[in-house]
Amino acid sequence: MTITITAFDRSPDGGRGLARDTRVRWALEEAGLPYDVRLVRHKAMKEPPHLALNPFGQIPTYEEDGLALFETGAIILHIARHHPGLLPADADAQARAVTWMFAAVNTLEPPILDLFTARILEGDRPWAQARIPLVMDRVRARFRQFADYLADSEWLDGDFSAGDLMMVHVLLRARPSGILDEFPNLAAYVARGEARPAYQRAFAAQLAVNALPRA
Amino acid sequence: MTITITAFDRSPDGGRGLARDTRVRWALEEAGLPYDVRLVRHKAMKEPPHLALNPFGQIPTYEEDGLALFETGAIILHIARHHPGLLPADADAQARAVTWMFAAVNTLEPPILDLFTARILEGDRPWAQARIPLVMDRVRARFRQFADYLADSEWLDGDFSAGDLMMVHVLLRARPSGILDEFPNLAAYVARGEARPAYQRAFAAQLAVNALPRA
Repeated sequence: MTITITAFDRSPDGGRGLARDTRVRWALEEAGLPYDVRLVRHKAMKEPPHLALNPFGQIPTYEEDGLALFETGAIILHIARHHPGLLPADADAQARAVTWMFAAVNTLEPPILDLFTARILEGDRPWAQARIPLVMDRVRARFRQFADYLADSEWLDGDFSAGDLMMVHVLLRARPSGILDEFPNLAAYVARGEARPAYQRAFAAQLAVNALPRA
Repeated sequence: MTITITAFDRSPDGGRGLARDTRVRWALEEAGLPYDVRLVRHKAMKEPPHLALNPFGQIPTYEEDGLALFETGAIILHIARHHPGLLPADADAQARAVTWMFAAVNTLEPPILDLFTARILEGDRPWAQARIPLVMDRVRARFRQFADYLADSEWLDGDFSAGDLMMVHVLLRARPSGILDEFPNLAAYVARGEARPAYQRAFAAQLAVNALPRA
């Protein structure tokens, strides 16, 4: 089995591990699977060869022999279903882990994406300075709910799972805003994720790409 | 097996089927499963009994004997894995359907949610009228990509699947903005979804709740 993923040839975050390919690299490392990476320039993501893999023109994509997938949640769930290390054995516990995967991308991530919009895409609009605090408060409201739920648990539901992987990585995307560090138990949860050897390898691999001199 | 879901006691959309419980009702109808509905007032969603089911204080939730889930994607995937009618038999085709479920909630839905934010939550802010067109253009950009991909296919990947169910319902949420009708093939795709007998039953069930006189 040959696995190939795509990633930014140069991540907008400069190698801080915030781009979504880091999630998939992390899952592959947890499962102990070797993989190839095809780097894609931003412009090429919007052109037919890449659009054939992901019609929305984003990275990462995942190819495994005859199968092509996109969306980190779907890729990671596919890896998790076929290899040990990312999902519990019990069927009900698996369904709960999938709940957290969807919560990460559908409940936590949208306000974080909106913060990128407010600060970057609309950073030069006349309303930016007035609007950013509103969006930050929406991120905080979600983080507070999750902090109350997580309390001092090590992981969400027993052992580390794909649910933790997705939640940790989505939370991590809010670190540059300072909001993550306002919630000590969430910052500690993210730090536990980052301390895993598989995360360390994934982070180093994406950093190696992003530290290359620009052509 | 007894299935209980939660739904708004009164949906903010007044019964147009845009709230997320409609997705879960639809999936249960496709699978031919009976279910009970517990109606929840908005305020009660933020109180401990409901937060024990969904720490983010949202509907729908799903209870089935000892199992409790939230997030429509996770609920529908759970239903689809245990009952025929929502996922293809082939493992690769299943993984592709899951890709579309995540694309619906992580790629299509965030700009649609942002449009709700711009029009409703921030509707009285001084920037609202200048900002709404920007957000609408972001929704259009995603719809255009998906319209190009879908072309004149009946469903995404052969027979109707949980991937179509999620995509159709997320697209539907953009109908009040007028954007859905700007893309005739997407409007036709949504109309095919709405024409399914299972959708009709789900829509009628949520409408019956929302048409009740307010206490």
